[in-house]
Amino acid sequence: MRAHVPPSFAPSPLTLTSLGGVRAAGVAAGIKASGKPDVALLVADAPMSVAGVFTKNLFAAAPVLLSRRHLAESGGRVRAIVVNSGNANACTGETGERDAESMAAHVAAKIGCPAREVLVASTGVIGHKLPMDRVRAGIDAAFAELSDDVEAGRRFLAAIQTTDAFSKEAGEASTEDPALRVAGIAKGAGMIEPNMATMLAFVGTSASATPEELTRALPRIARASFNAVHVDTHTSTNDMFLLFSTARILNKGNGDGDGDGNSGAPWEPIASRVARRLAWLIARDGEGATKVTTIDVRGALSDDAADQVAREIARSALVRTALFGNDPNWGRFVSQVGNSAHVRDVTRLRCDLQGTTVFERGEPTAFDKSDLSRRMATDDVSLILDIGEGPGRASLMTSDLGYRYVEVNAEYTT
Amino acid sequence: MRAHVPPSFAPSPLTLTSLGGVRAAGVAAGIKASGKPDVALLVADAPMSVAGVFTKNLFAAAPVLLSRRHLAESGGRVRAIVVNSGNANACTGETGERDAESMAAHVAAKIGCPAREVLVASTGVIGHKLPMDRVRAGIDAAFAELSDDVEAGRRFLAAIQTTDAFSKEAGEASTEDPALRVAGIAKGAGMIEPNMATMLAFVGTSASATPEELTRALPRIARASFNAVHVDTHTSTNDMFLLFSTARILNKGNGDGDGDGNSGAPWEPIASRVARRLAWLIARDGEGATKVTTIDVRGALSDDAADQVAREIARSALVRTALFGNDPNWGRFVSQVGNSAHVRDVTRLRCDLQGTTVFERGEPTAFDKSDLSRRMATDDVSLILDIGEGPGRASLMTSDLGYRYVEVNAEYTT
Repeated sequence: MRAHVPPSFAPSPLTLTSLGGVRAAGVAAGIKASGKPDVALLVADAPMSVAGVFTKNLFAAAPVLLSRRHLAESGGRVRAIVVNSGNANACTGETGERDAESMAAHVAAKIGCPAREVLVASTGVIGHKLPMDRVRAGIDAAFAELSDDVEAGRRFLAAIQTTDAFSKEAGEASTEDPALRVAGIAKGAGMIEPNMATMLAFVGTSASATPEELTRALPRIARASFNAVHVDTHTSTNDMFLLFSTARILNKGNGDGDGDGNSGAPWEPIASRVARRLAWLIARDGEGATKVTTIDVRGALSDDAADQVAREIARSALVRTALFGNDPNWGRFVSQVGNSAHVRDVTRLRCDLQGTTVFERGEPTAFDKSDLSRRMATDDVSLILDIGEGPGRASLMTSDLGYRYVEVNAEYTT
Repeated sequence: MRAHVPPSFAPSPLTLTSLGGVRAAGVAAGIKASGKPDVALLVADAPMSVAGVFTKNLFAAAPVLLSRRHLAESGGRVRAIVVNSGNANACTGETGERDAESMAAHVAAKIGCPAREVLVASTGVIGHKLPMDRVRAGIDAAFAELSDDVEAGRRFLAAIQTTDAFSKEAGEASTEDPALRVAGIAKGAGMIEPNMATMLAFVGTSASATPEELTRALPRIARASFNAVHVDTHTSTNDMFLLFSTARILNKGNGDGDGDGNSGAPWEPIASRVARRLAWLIARDGEGATKVTTIDVRGALSDDAADQVAREIARSALVRTALFGNDPNWGRFVSQVGNSAHVRDVTRLRCDLQGTTVFERGEPTAFDKSDLSRRMATDDVSLILDIGEGPGRASLMTSDLGYRYVEVNAEYTT
């Protein structure tokens, strides 16, 4: 077995507290047996605009159900986000629902706001009740430590993590207006605890945006980032992506009407890049992953067909082990296209791997296998499949599947 | 990494030559670099009834296209089946099509029958032209060795294998009429060469059956056997299942009209059991597999929905690594049900693993994890998911995913 060295990535110069208008904290409340930070709190100076997307899993956890309801009841106006790690509060029945409500109520009471203005997220082991005494004490401790400095933002990030091998943050300021900032943090795709790759992501902007504007931008941003990540076929009971505005600066460019599908607000393309980077980091941290492969499917009958084909390729264990092994095994890639119900004709299929055409017109090309294999031994691999029968396109990021994936996932609970 | 000991299974007392009316041979023609047997030939004394199902992969190999056409042209009357291993003759363009035709023509000339009465199958590496001189010489050598004894049947079986860790054969005689026999052999699901789990299966009966009767029974038999195996998401370019009758005894019970969906012919339930056993052996030989798990989905909205749910569970790397690790990780199983687009309500979901209920009514049960884990450490594991929202049922056999799967599949071509 190969030695496992977790990768490291430079921290972002910007984190959530860099946006202004919010304070953060992260504390160790004893929910995790390890004693690591496990309660995170973000409090806005005034109600901020928030939009969210949540897991579609029918076993959606209690905090997901609660936050979805609170967002609807408050019209997307939120004062605080409270997160616990180490326990997902999923598959916990009515007790779990009361516990999630109690977390929101406890935070709301400390702030003096309605409970509907508090969102709750949880991640960790499923099927266990939350230790509510510790959770409440943790929330109290977090309130005592709230701060608007960068270190407080980093403590918030640390407290939402579970099996993450490295921290995931990204941020960017507008080159035209340095006060226009976007910062984001995420956790995932650790699957040890014990079941699924819970993905939590919080992306905020200092630009002013209404809940409606955020809600319109959210699907566009999610589609090209968190919904374009494939680590495993499981969607967690607890997945949540919140997009918020702390409204520190006026938004100058809303509604450009150029029909490109963007809002025209200058924060949206920045938020898209930040979310895409976070999504890449999540794929990179797929358990045992050694690289991220971006699968671009082109020339499909439709964008939806392209997306289906990309997902079929991404979930193939044969494809993912070949990527792990730096094996330019064109047969595995093209045969998945041939198996797809979303493809009718493969006679024009072309397959490019790291810029090298390895298959076209029904036959493999004469490429240099050793050279291509060496060029696959990197963090970032490109696989392009051009079907040549339509205008449909999709892009998906996937982790590879190696020994450590098996090690981590086969020998967890027993 | 755990030591790898290939399992062994007792040979069947019956093999294809036990049916009577056919002779077989298997020779080493030098297609495989290893020098192992790679040309197999089965010749019937007189045209026999045959029905076949073939891969739906859009990259169907030349021998698949040819055999499908020959079956149609001959009306399911076949004199010979010729198989080569070590080269799949897939993704080989027009040369490949001519080579497959040449194999059939060469066999037909030796017999003195029309080429349409010869079927061709190939398995092995894809994207390489067949060494036709060796193939023809191999066919000549096979004709010289044709025999109706059991050892000849075993040589046929040996010559269709590629990366199989063990031989796959099954056979059964009717308890009421020992002359009514069914024998079957199969190869798969080795994926080393280099791409896909080519599955070849040949099941014959000594009972008399017309091509039409075989064609009607075939989908019923395949659905519960080879189409109920999940080793990987790939369907090979070369998959083929042929069902044939050597018509040594009259069929006494055709058309019972009892509406159970079977033909009433006494050979059909025997053929179903033989095919199911071969399918189990194929799943057991999924590369790196240590066990076969039968996933029974019950209470789905329809049989199709149940089948989709079972496949979603079977293809999850998280599920398959848990099975490898003997980990009674209920969360992975039930969360896949929660993710399915084919399920509406999970409130009544129950999950039984090796006869122990591990999850019901939204929460895990208090089961003995260590005991259950010990009972999962066997060849044959049962996972039952009862959704409780409809009458739909499906049963799927899947292999697990362990270190050796990664080893074999990550480090092949380079």
